[in-house]
Amino acid sequence: MARLSGGDPSLLRRLNAIAVLRALYAAEELTLTELVKASEVSRPTVEEIATDLGEQGLIEEVQLSPDAPRPVGRPAKRYRFRPESGHVAGLEIGPHQALCLVADLRGVVVGRARAEVTPEMDAPDRLGVARRVLGAAVGGRPNVRVLGVGTTGVVSGGKVVRGERLPGWTGLDLPAEFGGGCPVLAGNDTKLATLAEHWRGAANGVDDIVYVQAGRTVSLGLLLDGKLHAGHNGAAGEIGALRRVGWYAALDRFLAFGDGSGSAEATRRVFDALRGGDPEAEAIVAAFVTDLCVGVAAAVLTVDPQLVVIGGGLAQAGDLLTTPLRTELTRLCLFPVRVETSMLGDDSVALGAVRLALSRVERELFSVADVA
Amino acid sequence: MARLSGGDPSLLRRLNAIAVLRALYAAEELTLTELVKASEVSRPTVEEIATDLGEQGLIEEVQLSPDAPRPVGRPAKRYRFRPESGHVAGLEIGPHQALCLVADLRGVVVGRARAEVTPEMDAPDRLGVARRVLGAAVGGRPNVRVLGVGTTGVVSGGKVVRGERLPGWTGLDLPAEFGGGCPVLAGNDTKLATLAEHWRGAANGVDDIVYVQAGRTVSLGLLLDGKLHAGHNGAAGEIGALRRVGWYAALDRFLAFGDGSGSAEATRRVFDALRGGDPEAEAIVAAFVTDLCVGVAAAVLTVDPQLVVIGGGLAQAGDLLTTPLRTELTRLCLFPVRVETSMLGDDSVALGAVRLALSRVERELFSVADVA
Repeated sequence: MARLSGGDPSLLRRLNAIAVLRALYAAEELTLTELVKASEVSRPTVEEIATDLGEQGLIEEVQLSPDAPRPVGRPAKRYRFRPESGHVAGLEIGPHQALCLVADLRGVVVGRARAEVTPEMDAPDRLGVARRVLGAAVGGRPNVRVLGVGTTGVVSGGKVVRGERLPGWTGLDLPAEFGGGCPVLAGNDTKLATLAEHWRGAANGVDDIVYVQAGRTVSLGLLLDGKLHAGHNGAAGEIGALRRVGWYAALDRFLAFGDGSGSAEATRRVFDALRGGDPEAEAIVAAFVTDLCVGVAAAVLTVDPQLVVIGGGLAQAGDLLTTPLRTELTRLCLFPVRVETSMLGDDSVALGAVRLALSRVERELFSVADVA
Repeated sequence: MARLSGGDPSLLRRLNAIAVLRALYAAEELTLTELVKASEVSRPTVEEIATDLGEQGLIEEVQLSPDAPRPVGRPAKRYRFRPESGHVAGLEIGPHQALCLVADLRGVVVGRARAEVTPEMDAPDRLGVARRVLGAAVGGRPNVRVLGVGTTGVVSGGKVVRGERLPGWTGLDLPAEFGGGCPVLAGNDTKLATLAEHWRGAANGVDDIVYVQAGRTVSLGLLLDGKLHAGHNGAAGEIGALRRVGWYAALDRFLAFGDGSGSAEATRRVFDALRGGDPEAEAIVAAFVTDLCVGVAAAVLTVDPQLVVIGGGLAQAGDLLTTPLRTELTRLCLFPVRVETSMLGDDSVALGAVRLALSRVERELFSVADVA
C-alpha cells in the first residue's frame, strides 16, 4: 500500500500490463481505442504493452481477412487474447478410472483421455496408466503450463498423506511422479470435485457449499467464501471417519443389494428396483438416506452452507435420492437447506483438477497479490 | 486496480493519509522525519496530512515537557496517534449476566460494568438492565464510535433470528434497541467469544479454530482463515441441534450432580468431587466428555482446525476436562488436535463484541478495501 503511494514505476507498469491483458481476456477482440478505454491506460503505453504481450504469444493483432470489405482510410488495429497460447491438464487417478482433461487458458476442454483401473492395482501400474492417459490427452501440445492431479486420500503439499484405499498410495509424492514438464498441483478427489461444482456445476455462483461425494465411499468437500476449505492437515470433510456417523454400514447394506460390487450397474439395479416399488430397495435406500444424513447434517450444522450438492455414483439416482435427503436434512437441521445433484458425472474430479491448475495460471497472468 | 494504474489523485491522497495514520498507530510516537520514512510519503505531504489528522483529533503533536532538557537548535516535531480520540463498546446480553466493556482505539479496556440477570427475565427488563450497564461502562464518554452486542441465539443482520433460550428474544432487532448514538453491530455470543480467543485468548496467532462453549449449554464457534465463519443463516456451529450428538442429555446428567442448577458453584462441586476421586463424579465427567466429543469430533473432522479451545463455565475445570477431551478427540479424529482451555472467563463474549466493533472502526480508519 505504502509502495503504491510511493508510486513504484515498475509496479505501475505491471499493473498497466495486467489491465490491458484483463481487458483483452474479458472481450472477444478490441480495437486499440477500445483497449485504451477498457484498460484506462494511455494509448502509447498500451501500444508498448501490446507489443510485449504479442512477443509473449499471449495476444495477437487480428488481421482483416483478405475478402473482408476494405475499410475507408487506415484500418483500426484490433487485438485478441490467445487462449490457445497455453494449456492446463487435469488428471484424476482414482480407484476405478484414470481420466485426463486438457483445457486452454479460457478453460475450454480441448483434449481428453480415459482408462479403467481397479482398486487392487499396485501404485506403479496405476501411475503408469495415469501417465499414458495424461500423454494421450495432452497429445503433443508443447505448452502445458500447469498439471493438476486429483486422487483419493488426504492430500497435502502435493503428497498423499493418507491413502489407505489404494495399495502403495500413502506417502506418494505427486509432483515428483509427474513433475519435470511443468508445475504439478495435487488435491483430494472430493475437494477437487467440489471446485468443479462451483466452477461449472450445480454450485456455480454459490460461495458456501457442502459437496457430498456418495458412491462406493462417502466423503465431503467444503467450499467457504468461494474458496476450497482444505483444513490444517488437508483433511477437512473427513467426517466419515466418525464411527457414530455410521456411513459405511449403511453403504455396505446399500451396495450388498445386487451383486455387492458397488458397480454402476449394481447401483442402477437398486434404483431401478426402487422405481419399480421393490420394498427391499425402498428399505435399503431409506436406511441409507437416514444414516447418510447424520453426517451431512453434522457438516451442515457446523458450517451452515447455502447449498448441498450430491455427487458421485449415487447422484445418478437424482430425485430418488435428493427428495428423501432434503426431507431428512430439513428434519435434522435448524434451517431448510437447498440440495442439488451434480450433473458432472465422471468428469468432476478431473475438471476440478483443471480448475486448480487454471487458477495458478490466472494468478501468474493477472495477479495483483503483492499490491494489496 | 485499473483506477490505480490510472493514478487517481484523491485516491493517492487517501492512501497517503492511511500510510501516515498507520505508521503513527503502529508506533508510540514519531518525529516528522521518522514519519516520512515510515509512511514512504513526501515530507510536505506528510505535514499537510498531519494537520488534517490533527484537526480530526486522531493524532497530535507531542509537546516537550517544560522541565525536559532544552534541545540544541530547533526541536524536531513529534507526533502520536490518539487512541483516546475514540472508543468502542462491547455489550454481552446473556441469560445470566449483562456485561459491558469499553475500549479505546487501541483496544485497551477503559470502562466496565456488569449486572446479574436471570434466564426467566422478560425481554424489556433484560434490555433495561443492558442499557443501564452500557451507560455505566461508557460513563459519559462522548466519542463511542461503534457498539458491538453479543447475545444468545442465531443472530443475523443485527436481528435475533432464533432465540428460544430467552423469553421474547426471537425477532429482537438490536440496532433498533440500542441505535441512535452510534452504529450497532450484533453477533451470537459463542461466535464473539471465538473472536475474543483469537484476539486476546488461547487462539491468538492461530487462524483455524473450533471454539467449544461448554457451560449450561454447549455450542461451537468457527474461525477459519482468521475470519469468523458465521454461515449462510448465521447458524454455523449449531451442531448441538443434532439429536444423535447427544450433548444435552450428557449436560443434564452433568448439571444434575450437585443442586442441578448448573450454577458455577454446582459445576465447581462436580470437579471438586472429581479431584477428590469421587467415583460418581468420575463417571459423570467421563460420560459427558464421551458425548461432548462426538459433536466436537464431527466439527473437527469437518473443518480440520489447528486448535480446539474449550471455553464457558466448564473451562474452569482446566486439565480435568481437557486431558480426557484430548484423548477422546485423538481416538475419534484422523489427526491429533491441539486442545486448550480459555482463560478469558466471563469476559469472553463482551471482549469479542469489543473486537467486532473495533474492526469496523479500523476499517473506517485504515481501509484500502476499495483499492484491491
